[in-house]
Amino acid sequence: MPRNAFYAQSGGVTAVINASAAGVIETARRHRKHIGKVYAGRNGILGALHEDLIDTSRESPAAIKALRNTPGGAFGSARYKLKGVEKGGHEYERLIEVFKAHDIGFFFYNGGNDSADTCLKVSQISEKMGYPIVAVHVPKTVDNDLPITDTCPGFGSVAKYVATSMMEAVLDVESMAKTSTKVFILEVMGRHAGWITAATGLASQKAGQGPHILLFPEVPWNEEAFLARVDESVKQYGYCAIGASEGLQDKDGKFLSESGLKDAFGHAQLGGVAPMLANLVQSKLKLKQHWAVADYLQRAARHIASKADLEQSYAVGKAAVELAARGVNSVMPTIVRTSSRPYRWKIGVAKLSDVANVEKKMPRDFITPDGFHITQKCRNYLQPLIAGEAFPPFEGGLPKYVRLKNVPVRKKTGEYRP
Amino acid sequence: MPRNAFYAQSGGVTAVINASAAGVIETARRHRKHIGKVYAGRNGILGALHEDLIDTSRESPAAIKALRNTPGGAFGSARYKLKGVEKGGHEYERLIEVFKAHDIGFFFYNGGNDSADTCLKVSQISEKMGYPIVAVHVPKTVDNDLPITDTCPGFGSVAKYVATSMMEAVLDVESMAKTSTKVFILEVMGRHAGWITAATGLASQKAGQGPHILLFPEVPWNEEAFLARVDESVKQYGYCAIGASEGLQDKDGKFLSESGLKDAFGHAQLGGVAPMLANLVQSKLKLKQHWAVADYLQRAARHIASKADLEQSYAVGKAAVELAARGVNSVMPTIVRTSSRPYRWKIGVAKLSDVANVEKKMPRDFITPDGFHITQKCRNYLQPLIAGEAFPPFEGGLPKYVRLKNVPVRKKTGEYRP
Repeated sequence: MPRNAFYAQSGGVTAVINASAAGVIETARRHRKHIGKVYAGRNGILGALHEDLIDTSRESPAAIKALRNTPGGAFGSARYKLKGVEKGGHEYERLIEVFKAHDIGFFFYNGGNDSADTCLKVSQISEKMGYPIVAVHVPKTVDNDLPITDTCPGFGSVAKYVATSMMEAVLDVESMAKTSTKVFILEVMGRHAGWITAATGLASQKAGQGPHILLFPEVPWNEEAFLARVDESVKQYGYCAIGASEGLQDKDGKFLSESGLKDAFGHAQLGGVAPMLANLVQSKLKLKQHWAVADYLQRAARHIASKADLEQSYAVGKAAVELAARGVNSVMPTIVRTSSRPYRWKIGVAKLSDVANVEKKMPRDFITPDGFHITQKCRNYLQPLIAGEAFPPFEGGLPKYVRLKNVPVRKKTGEYRP
Repeated sequence: MPRNAFYAQSGGVTAVINASAAGVIETARRHRKHIGKVYAGRNGILGALHEDLIDTSRESPAAIKALRNTPGGAFGSARYKLKGVEKGGHEYERLIEVFKAHDIGFFFYNGGNDSADTCLKVSQISEKMGYPIVAVHVPKTVDNDLPITDTCPGFGSVAKYVATSMMEAVLDVESMAKTSTKVFILEVMGRHAGWITAATGLASQKAGQGPHILLFPEVPWNEEAFLARVDESVKQYGYCAIGASEGLQDKDGKFLSESGLKDAFGHAQLGGVAPMLANLVQSKLKLKQHWAVADYLQRAARHIASKADLEQSYAVGKAAVELAARGVNSVMPTIVRTSSRPYRWKIGVAKLSDVANVEKKMPRDFITPDGFHITQKCRNYLQPLIAGEAFPPFEGGLPKYVRLKNVPVRKKTGEYRP
C-alpha cells in the first residue's frame, strides 16, 4: 500500500527552491506504487505542527511545472527550529502524531544545516515511537555551506546574480569615475561563509577590472590594509569596486556592524556593512562613494538564475523521492562533480549524520594570500556553477511567476496546544 | 564636403545609453556624404575640453553593434556642467576651438536636462563665434524627467529591473513572513521625480500583493500615516513591501536623510532612506525588517533591459544623426506615443529651448489619492515601457559585454589651461 509524503521548505528561500519542490512532486507522481499524495507544510514545518497541510495533488501538472520558474517558497517556508529531545521532544512527538493521522510514511525536508539535523531526528524519533518514517533531506542554501555536496542548490543562482550585478555596476562606475564615484561597494549575503562574496569576484575577468577588493567573513577585518588597498586601486585604475560580505568580522569574530565603528558624525553605525565601509572611505580617504545592498534581491532573482543550479535543484528533489521510494533513510542527495572542464556532475548520497550541523567555509587556498580576492582554483570551482541561462517566461514585461492554489487538507487531529 | 561629428555621453549612465551611441555611429556611417568621422569625447564633455577625442572609426562594425548589449558609458561619461557665459564662456570657446581643429560640424550630446541646455548653448555660441555647429541632443535619463518626450531612454530598463526585483523580493518575503521578515523596503533612484518608485508598483498585480506602499518624492513624508499603513498591511496581508524613493522629502522639501530622524539608538542616521525607514519600523512597530538599496545595480542592469527601451535608445541616436544630416539644429528627438494598447510609438522632434532645464514630475493623477500607490492611469503609461526582453549574449555564465579599443585622435591644439 502506498503511503503519503510530507514535504516542507525550511529557512531562507531561494530562486530555485521551488524547482526542488517540482522535482519531489513530479517524481512522487511517477511512484504511485510507493507514494500516495504529497502533502506540503504550509509555512514549512509549522504546517506539520499545526496540521496545516496543503494537498499538492490539487495542483495541475502545468502549475507544478511552473514551480521551476518561480522564486520564493511556494508553500511558505519557516525559520523555526524544533525543540529537541532535551526539551522533552514534544514537538517531534506532535509531528509524528500528525504524520500518523495522515498516513505519512515519507518526510522530505528542503533546507540547510539546521534542517538536515531536524530531518535526521524525525527519522530517529519516528522509529523510536514505533511509526518509522523514511526521512530524506533535500539540500538548499544560498550560503553554499553544506558539507560533502560539491555545491548547494540555490547558491549557483545567487552567484550568477551577484557576479552579473557586479560586472554591470563596474562598467557603470568605471565609465564615470573621472568626475563622480570613485569607490563602489556591493554588500552580499553570507554571514559565516564567503561563497557569495567570492562569486562577485568572477566579474573581474582581467587585471585591473573591478571588483578590486573582496571582503570575506573568513578573513579578519583590517581597516588599515583595506584603506591602503582602496587608495592604491583608485590611484592605479581610477576607481575601486568592492564586494563585501554582510558577515564581515574583526579578528575576535565580532561582526563589523557591532564593532563600535563610527560614522562620519562619530555615531555608532547601525545596519549594513556597505554603508559603514562607505562612510569609512568617505571620512578617511575623502573619496566619493556609492553603495548597494542586494539583500533579498539576490536570493530571489529567478530572472537570472543559473541553468546548472536550476537543474541540480530539480535533480536533488527527484533523487530524494527515488531514494525514499527504495526505502533509503536518513540521507541527503548530493551534487558530485566529476569534471570541471567540461563541467559534469552526478547525484550522490550522503548520510544525514555526516551532514547535520556541519558548516563548510571557503578553503584558504580559494582566497589569495593577501586575503582580498579569489584564486584561480576558486574560479575553476565557481565558474561552472553559474553556467547557462534559464530565463523564466515573461508576460507584459514581467516574469510570469506561478502562485499555487494551496488547497488545505482536512484536519484530523485536535488543535495543537504547545 | 562632409564634416566630422562629436558625440559625448553626459551624466549618469544607463543600461542602454550605449545603444544610443550605436545608433549615432552606425547611422553616421551611412551618411558619409554629410558626416565624416564620429569622434567621441573620452569622459564626456571633458574629452572635448582637453581634446581627448576617441576615433570611433577604429572600431569594427561588430564592436559598435555590441554596444547595444553593453551597459555603462563606453567612452566614459562625466558629471560636468560647463561654465556659462555669465562666467566668461571660456569653456564654450575652448570647445569651439577643439571642434574647429578637428573639423567638427556636428555635436551630439547624450544626456538629461543639464546637457540639453549645454547642447543649446553650443549651437548658439558656435554661431556667434562664426563657426556654426549643428547641435542635437540625444535624450537619456533613468529619472524619466525630460519634458515633451513620452519617456526617456534608459528609464524603461530601470523600470523593468525594479519591477522585476520587487516582484521577486515580494515572493520571497511573502513566503517567509510567518516566522521572519514582516517589512521589506527597496530603495530606488529618483531624487526629484518618483517615476522609478512608481515602476516598483507594477509588481503588485492584484489587491494585497506587494508592494503595498510607495513613497514618492512628490508626496511629502508623513511618518504617522506611513506607520499606520505599514501596520495595517502587516495585519491584513501578513507582510508589507515598500518601494521608497531615495529623494523622499518632508513637507518643507527637506530630504529625509537630512531630516534629523533618529535611528533606534537615538542617533541621526546617515546614508540611505531604506535603512532609516527600516529602523523606524523596527523601533516604532517592533516588526522584523529587511531592506535593499539597488543603487547602480538598477541603472546598469542591461541583463534585464526593456526591449522597448533598447529600441527607443537606438532610435533617438539614429534620428539625431538623420536630423543633423538634414541640417536641423538645436533639437532633440523625442518618443511620441501614438497608442498604448497595442503600444505604438514614433520619433518626434522638440526644440531644445523647450527642453533645457525643464523637469517633468509625476502627474498627481498617476498617484492614488492617499499618496501611497500608483493609479491605473499610471500603470497604463508605464506598462508598455517595460515590454519585451532583450537579453545580452552570455559567455561562461556571464553577460558578454564589449569594451572598445577607444583609440585616441592625435591632438592638434595646445594643452588646455583653464
